[in-house]
Amino acid sequence: VIPPLRYEDGVLLILDQRFLPGEERWLRCRRPEEVAEAIRTLAVRGAPAIGLAAAYGLALAATEAHEPQAARRRVDAAAELLARTRPTAANLRFALERGREELERATAPAAALLELARRLHREQLEADRRLAVHGAERMRPGERVLTHCNTGPLATGGYGTAAGVIRAAHERGLLESAWVTETRPLLQGSRLTAWEMRRAGVPFRLLGDSAVGALMQRGVVDRVVVGADRIAASGDVANKVGTYPIAVLAERHGVPVDVAAPLSTLDPETPAGEAIPIEERSPDEVTHVGGRRAAPPGTEAVNPAFDVTPAELVSAIVTEAGVLEPPLSESIARAVGAVRAA
Amino acid sequence: VIPPLRYEDGVLLILDQRFLPGEERWLRCRRPEEVAEAIRTLAVRGAPAIGLAAAYGLALAATEAHEPQAARRRVDAAAELLARTRPTAANLRFALERGREELERATAPAAALLELARRLHREQLEADRRLAVHGAERMRPGERVLTHCNTGPLATGGYGTAAGVIRAAHERGLLESAWVTETRPLLQGSRLTAWEMRRAGVPFRLLGDSAVGALMQRGVVDRVVVGADRIAASGDVANKVGTYPIAVLAERHGVPVDVAAPLSTLDPETPAGEAIPIEERSPDEVTHVGGRRAAPPGTEAVNPAFDVTPAELVSAIVTEAGVLEPPLSESIARAVGAVRAA
Repeated sequence: VIPPLRYEDGVLLILDQRFLPGEERWLRCRRPEEVAEAIRTLAVRGAPAIGLAAAYGLALAATEAHEPQAARRRVDAAAELLARTRPTAANLRFALERGREELERATAPAAALLELARRLHREQLEADRRLAVHGAERMRPGERVLTHCNTGPLATGGYGTAAGVIRAAHERGLLESAWVTETRPLLQGSRLTAWEMRRAGVPFRLLGDSAVGALMQRGVVDRVVVGADRIAASGDVANKVGTYPIAVLAERHGVPVDVAAPLSTLDPETPAGEAIPIEERSPDEVTHVGGRRAAPPGTEAVNPAFDVTPAELVSAIVTEAGVLEPPLSESIARAVGAVRAA
Repeated sequence: VIPPLRYEDGVLLILDQRFLPGEERWLRCRRPEEVAEAIRTLAVRGAPAIGLAAAYGLALAATEAHEPQAARRRVDAAAELLARTRPTAANLRFALERGREELERATAPAAALLELARRLHREQLEADRRLAVHGAERMRPGERVLTHCNTGPLATGGYGTAAGVIRAAHERGLLESAWVTETRPLLQGSRLTAWEMRRAGVPFRLLGDSAVGALMQRGVVDRVVVGADRIAASGDVANKVGTYPIAVLAERHGVPVDVAAPLSTLDPETPAGEAIPIEERSPDEVTHVGGRRAAPPGTEAVNPAFDVTPAELVSAIVTEAGVLEPPLSESIARAVGAVRAA
C-alpha cells in the first residue's frame, strides 16, 4: 500500500486522500502553512499520520531561515499553527512536543528537525508492526473482525493500527473476514479501508454504519478492533464518531472491543474522556454526500468528528509495547511510566 | 406536505421519492405491474404508504377485465406480484388481505377495490392524526426528540407516524427541536424527513447515523420516536436498519423509545422478531453514495434494510387506538382482540 507521506528534496509529498480511491493526486508542500492546510482539509488524516505530517511541517519551517535564531522563531510559529489544525488527535501534540525538544538541543535546526521527522516515521512503522502482532495474537482462528473508519497505512504512515492488526491476523491465517463500516460522513471505510484491504488481499465486506447492530444480532461479529485519536489516563478512548455506539452494541452481544494505538496516542495529561476536546466539523459534510447536496438548502446539521468510548467498554489497548489490560487506568500509568523511564 | 399517492381517472399517481428533495417527479401507474415496480424500486416507500399503493394496485388490476371472474383472476395475480415486492412491511400484507376479503364479497370488483383503497387511505390519515395526539401527549414541554428514517406523510400517505407525533408535539408547543438521522444508505432522513419538516415548520437538525451516541452522551436527546415496518406478537419491532443501535444507546442513557405505528403494522401471526423476514437490498446502495461509486470496484457489501429492536427496549407502542404499554405481548394481544371483536 502506498505510504501517504514522502519527503524529497525540500518537499513533503502528501497523497491527497480526499480523491481516493478514484484518483491518486499528490500535494507538494514546501511550507508549513501548506501542511497545516492539508491536515485541516483532511487531505492527510489519521492521528499518527497527522503527527508525522506536522513533524515534517516543522522541518520545512526550519529551512525557511538561514540563521538558527530566525529558524527557531519560524518553527515556533509553525508549531502554533499546526497545533490549531485539529484538536482531538494526541499524536499531533506528541509530534510537536518532540519537535520543540529537538529544537532546544539542536545547533542546526533544519537538519535536526528533518532527522526527527524521519525517525518518527521509521518508529511509527516499527511500532505499527509490533502492535499488529500483539493484536493478532489475541485472535482465535476463523474470527470475523469488525472495524470502523480507516486505520491502515494511509492513517499512520506505517503498517496501520487496527487495520494492521487485521492484516497481521490474515497473514497468520486467523481471519475469516473483516467487516468494514463505510464511516459517514467522509466514507473513510468505503473509500480508504476498502482500497487498502483490496491491495493487501485481506478479505472484507462493507456495511453501512447503521448495520452494525443487525450483524451483531446475527452473531457474525467475533471481535471489534478500532484505532484511537486520543486515550485519556482513565482509558477512555476518543475515536471516529460511531465508535461508541459500536462498543455499546459489542458489550450487549459479548463481543470484545480491542483498541489498537501506538503509545503516542496515550495522553496521560488528560484525566478522562470528558476533558478530550471533540472537533465539530462543517455541517456540509452531513448535508452533502459524495460532493452533492442531499438535504434541502438551509438544513442545519451537527457533525461531531469523534466520540468517546468509556474505558469500561474497552477490552484491551494494543500498543507496540504490548497489550494493556483492564483496569486500564493502571496499565496505562505503568506503560507511560516505562516510556518515561526509558 | 404533498401526499405521495393520488388516484385520478384510472391512474395512480406516485410521487417518485427517489428524486426528492431536488425534483418532484410523478409516476403514472395504470397497471399493477407498474405499482409493484414503484414499490420495489422505493419510488414509494414507508410501510403504510406501501400498503396503500398495493391497495390501489389491486383496484387497477380489477379494471383490466370486464367480466368479474376474469377481474378476480387478474386481482389474484396482482396480489401475488405485489406481495413479493418487499418482504418486511406488515401493512403490505394487511392491505392485500383486506383486498382479497373485499373481492370475495364484491359483485363489481373494480368499483369495490377502488372504494376499499380510498377507504384505507382515509383511515390511514385518521389513524395517523389520532396516533400523533396520543404520542404527543406522552411528552413534556421542551423535549428534544430523535427520529430515524422517514415516517411523515411521504411514508404513510397521511399525517405520518413518528414524524406525525413530532409535528403534533411541535403544534402543542412541547417540542424544543427534533434530531433527524440522515439514514444511510438511501438518506430518507436527509432527503425526505428534512424536506417534510421544513415544509411543516418543525425545528430540526440533521446528524450522521453514527453521531447518535455522541448526542446521547451530551444529554441532548430526551426521547426517541421511531416508526415500524412490522411488530411481532412479542412486541419486537422491525424497522429501518439502525433503529436497534439507537434503542440500545437509549437504554444505556435512560432515554425512552416510543414506537409509533398504526394497528395495521401489528402482526400477531409472527410470534417474535426472529421470525420477521429481513429484506437484504442491493450492495450497490452501500458501495455507492448519492448515485456515485464510493468504494473501489469489486467491493462486496451487505445491506440489510431493517433490524429488529427487542420488545424489552421499547417503552411504548403508540397506535391510533391508544398507547400500548409493557408488557407489550399482553397489550398487543388486547389491542388485536379489540380490533377483531369490532
